[in-house]
Amino acid sequence: MKHRLNVWVIGGDQRQVYLAELLHREGHTVHIYALEQAVEDCDEEPSQAHLADCVILPLPVTGNGSLLNTPLSHRSHPLSAILDALRPGQVICAGKVDPNTAALAAKRGLVLHDYFAREELAMANAVPTVEGAIQIAMEQLPITLHGARVLVIGCGRIGKLLAHRLKGLGAKVSLSARKCADLAWVEAHDFCVEHTDELDGWLCPYDLVVNTAPARVLDAERLSELKEGCLVLDLASKPGGVDFEAARQLGVKTIHALSLPGRVAPMTAARAVWVTVCNILREEGL
Amino acid sequence: MKHRLNVWVIGGDQRQVYLAELLHREGHTVHIYALEQAVEDCDEEPSQAHLADCVILPLPVTGNGSLLNTPLSHRSHPLSAILDALRPGQVICAGKVDPNTAALAAKRGLVLHDYFAREELAMANAVPTVEGAIQIAMEQLPITLHGARVLVIGCGRIGKLLAHRLKGLGAKVSLSARKCADLAWVEAHDFCVEHTDELDGWLCPYDLVVNTAPARVLDAERLSELKEGCLVLDLASKPGGVDFEAARQLGVKTIHALSLPGRVAPMTAARAVWVTVCNILREEGL
Amino acid sequence: MKHRLNVWVIGGDQRQVYLAELLHREGHTVHIYALEQAVEDCDEEPSQAHLADCVILPLPVTGNGSLLNTPLSHRSHPLSAILDALRPGQVICAGKVDPNTAALAAKRGLVLHDYFAREELAMANAVPTVEGAIQIAMEQLPITLHGARVLVIGCGRIGKLLAHRLKGLGAKVSLSARKCADLAWVEAHDFCVEHTDELDGWLCPYDLVVNTAPARVLDAERLSELKEGCLVLDLASKPGGVDFEAARQLGVKTIHALSLPGRVAPMTAARAVWVTVCNILREEGL
Amino acid sequence: MKHRLNVWVIGGDQRQVYLAELLHREGHTVHIYALEQAVEDCDEEPSQAHLADCVILPLPVTGNGSLLNTPLSHRSHPLSAILDALRPGQVICAGKVDPNTAALAAKRGLVLHDYFAREELAMANAVPTVEGAIQIAMEQLPITLHGARVLVIGCGRIGKLLAHRLKGLGAKVSLSARKCADLAWVEAHDFCVEHTDELDGWLCPYDLVVNTAPARVLDAERLSELKEGCLVLDLASKPGGVDFEAARQLGVKTIHALSLPGRVAPMTAARAVWVTVCNILREEGL
Repeated sequence: MKHRLNVWVIGGDQRQVYLAELLHREGHTVHIYALEQAVEDCDEEPSQAHLADCVILPLPVTGNGSLLNTPLSHRSHPLSAILDALRPGQVICAGKVDPNTAALAAKRGLVLHDYFAREELAMANAVPTVEGAIQIAMEQLPITLHGARVLVIGCGRIGKLLAHRLKGLGAKVSLSARKCADLAWVEAHDFCVEHTDELDGWLCPYDLVVNTAPARVLDAERLSELKEGCLVLDLASKPGGVDFEAARQLGVKTIHALSLPGRVAPMTAARAVWVTVCNILREEGL
Repeated sequence: MKHRLNVWVIGGDQRQVYLAELLHREGHTVHIYALEQAVEDCDEEPSQAHLADCVILPLPVTGNGSLLNTPLSHRSHPLSAILDALRPGQVICAGKVDPNTAALAAKRGLVLHDYFAREELAMANAVPTVEGAIQIAMEQLPITLHGARVLVIGCGRIGKLLAHRLKGLGAKVSLSARKCADLAWVEAHDFCVEHTDELDGWLCPYDLVVNTAPARVLDAERLSELKEGCLVLDLASKPGGVDFEAARQLGVKTIHALSLPGRVAPMTAARAVWVTVCNILREEGL
Repeated sequence: MKHRLNVWVIGGDQRQVYLAELLHREGHTVHIYALEQAVEDCDEEPSQAHLADCVILPLPVTGNGSLLNTPLSHRSHPLSAILDALRPGQVICAGKVDPNTAALAAKRGLVLHDYFAREELAMANAVPTVEGAIQIAMEQLPITLHGARVLVIGCGRIGKLLAHRLKGLGAKVSLSARKCADLAWVEAHDFCVEHTDELDGWLCPYDLVVNTAPARVLDAERLSELKEGCLVLDLASKPGGVDFEAARQLGVKTIHALSLPGRVAPMTAARAVWVTVCNILREEGL
Repeated sequence: MKHRLNVWVIGGDQRQVYLAELLHREGHTVHIYALEQAVEDCDEEPSQAHLADCVILPLPVTGNGSLLNTPLSHRSHPLSAILDALRPGQVICAGKVDPNTAALAAKRGLVLHDYFAREELAMANAVPTVEGAIQIAMEQLPITLHGARVLVIGCGRIGKLLAHRLKGLGAKVSLSARKCADLAWVEAHDFCVEHTDELDGWLCPYDLVVNTAPARVLDAERLSELKEGCLVLDLASKPGGVDFEAARQLGVKTIHALSLPGRVAPMTAARAVWVTVCNILREEGL
């Protein structure tokens, strides 16, 4: 990778602000646009953006309608205007690229590299996601996580890492999975094994239940089994895995915690984006 | 220990409320007094308190002047009035018993067992203290504790446990101590070793510094070494180990976090008090 | 699954002996054949084996030529003779089924379920493999693993689990990988990250190097970088990842440790086979 | 501490050999005596030993009768002859100094600093002791420590560290103690709590029992409760805490594992001695 890059950081939230700072500290030439509520030295126009080696658009790239996602700008920025300022051949990175935006880019001969679609970012984001979940649980529960009985549903990246961290804090962790290989993983890593399809009747001991599976695993019947005071955290993307309406009626406290990395550890999240962008740059030969 | 006790829980904060609930669930006869802002079924008078097997006064036992500490009562309760209602021979437990209060009790032939002075409560309280410190650090820092460089100063109960937990969360933990045996403990448990007297010049890498030592270890000079954004948590009792005025002038963010167990995990803290009271009861032959 | 099965355990090593014991303790009817050097109550003929619900052949199923693998039998047992005693419709499980043996079975209308090919056994076997590697390292090194610098090459099941366990023992663990997602996994789990392709010039600090990757990663040049006394363990299947001849000439101590589960923890290994066979039985509707 | 010392390493086992090597690598002038079976460049006479800044005698210092402990020498070395070669004012370090030897030294105006009596060495030695115990258990048991139920008796340095390490390997660890504060420690560190006085009737589930307490805790009755195949390791100094004769009659496999540091990790043990000697040197103003 080239030692000194010309990078444009355009739009987005606090994470993009930290990203720009990080790039600056690493010695790159950084231009910032559409972040003027948080950064003083923003560019006023994207007119020089075509000179950039690399352009980093936000996560998600799209805001309302066909606008760029710019919560820290006073103005609205149509995606088309931003894309018009770029040129083919630049490495343009963006998060959660939807088909519309991809089409707008393609029409101009631009390729949007979706950093959010890459496995290494998913893995890196698991770290602040898990830590955010732990922070919320600590804030909400009148007991310590140490000694608490916790059920983590789902044995993907986040479920596995969350189980490790909770054990590190002294919680008694059960991890539920469906596939034979996952169940074997759970045993090999010293957690209590549960089968996600066979949770009925076994939910009463938990102080905390965290869902990470993208499926309706906590329906009204299962929610009604939970003991008083049990907290339910849902980390799965919308619509999540909890029947929130039933929970409300049953008086079960539930929190659907989304987009944790940018909220609880924006600096760490920014670094994770940058590591991923660096991988893209290397692959593109820069 | 007798299976069913008559216990009076008198005064104090949310911790006493949870303690009463816990005793009730365990099948004991529980009377509650001077907690009427939090509990409906309080006794109106302590006139039957002399019938109790065990009386649990709050932590700390004394509020302003010679009053019982009763933040959840509408009224003021002079300690003398409470003690007048008790009788010699009861097991009377209280937290942080000061000489004045002890003298008031002695005059009436009462013995106050100070549960806060017992080692097992100090150890048990280390758990919510450490978890509370972690919660605050998570809330305050824009980075994850995972990957953060943390210095824990002091190698007592809390320093040791905090170091373990932080490592469980993936932090890079240095632990500073003074005694040869403590330094050997630090090495044996795989933390980076620092000598508390030789920290000068070595404080710049940390993202978080937590003091647990009852001595002024973080003076203006050391504080000035910390890198921008470093958070300083002081867990040592007043006056703490940080020059807070210097920190304010230097722009170093500091938090003096006291009485964490009752604040972050009152239910766990209540249970710890009860375990300790049970030990006292056993020793008293009840 | 049926509560009481009729199971035949045929041939193999100590692992099969423990497997038979385990089945017996669980209440199944167990017949044992071709294990007479280790078990007294062996059947003398497999003539009743066609009555079994489930037949468990050894791992690997094939010994020399076309014989069953029977290290604990006085006699030679041609595979064809064993297969002749079985009948289509039985659940027949075997480990590492080679094409020849599969063909012999197919000719008789038998299906051999290869338990060794299943992911859950691979995961379960990682546990004793990793523990065996640790035992060997402890036996061979004049230092403790605590404090030792260890490089684990390869970020599959075994590499990951080994890294966890070594950290649990206090070793300083680096884990090398190639894929971006694996490198992110390594960071997320707090190990030092190395890139397997960029190890040249960075191998001198290690006290122990464990290869788990199925590729020649430790050639003469890399071996020559290792410091005196460094131990090299190769856990990869033959031919392994080490240039053993170069190691011999360089005086680097290397151990190619294969088939560890059956050797270091045959009882645990037997249990893992049984859990896998149970999964097969369930899938076959037994 | 002076950068370059003149050190004499006299007598002892492999640990002293490694200690001499370590000192040599650190740039000190090293003389070696009474280790000629393991080291080529030994001095033939201790006649220049009075020139040393520091003399390191073995652990234990005394062999048979009034001889120096010299298992790696062809000859016998009376302690008096060695002490005659030294001079008052040198820092003379020795391990497990018995009253006779101390008296012999005192008569000559020499002070023997007993490094084995220092807390930091006890702590540092806990590391290889614990690792040695784990190695033995791995070698002896047909199951993995992962998943094994282990009882550690005694909550001192070694019991605590062993419990941590076993948990790191995935064992299910119970830790038994007597004092309230220790019991609270066990809970705070997430181990199962047992009371050493109340083990009767609760010993049947364990696969491994390790005693670290200097008291007869495993008598015939308790041993008879252990399940078949349970291994008993005794790490307590002679006479240990196990009724070995009863164990033999009951067929319980027991191992009294003593002096593990020098046996399983002599290089680590040597380093621990040197760190301790350095502390002594600093205290003596060298």
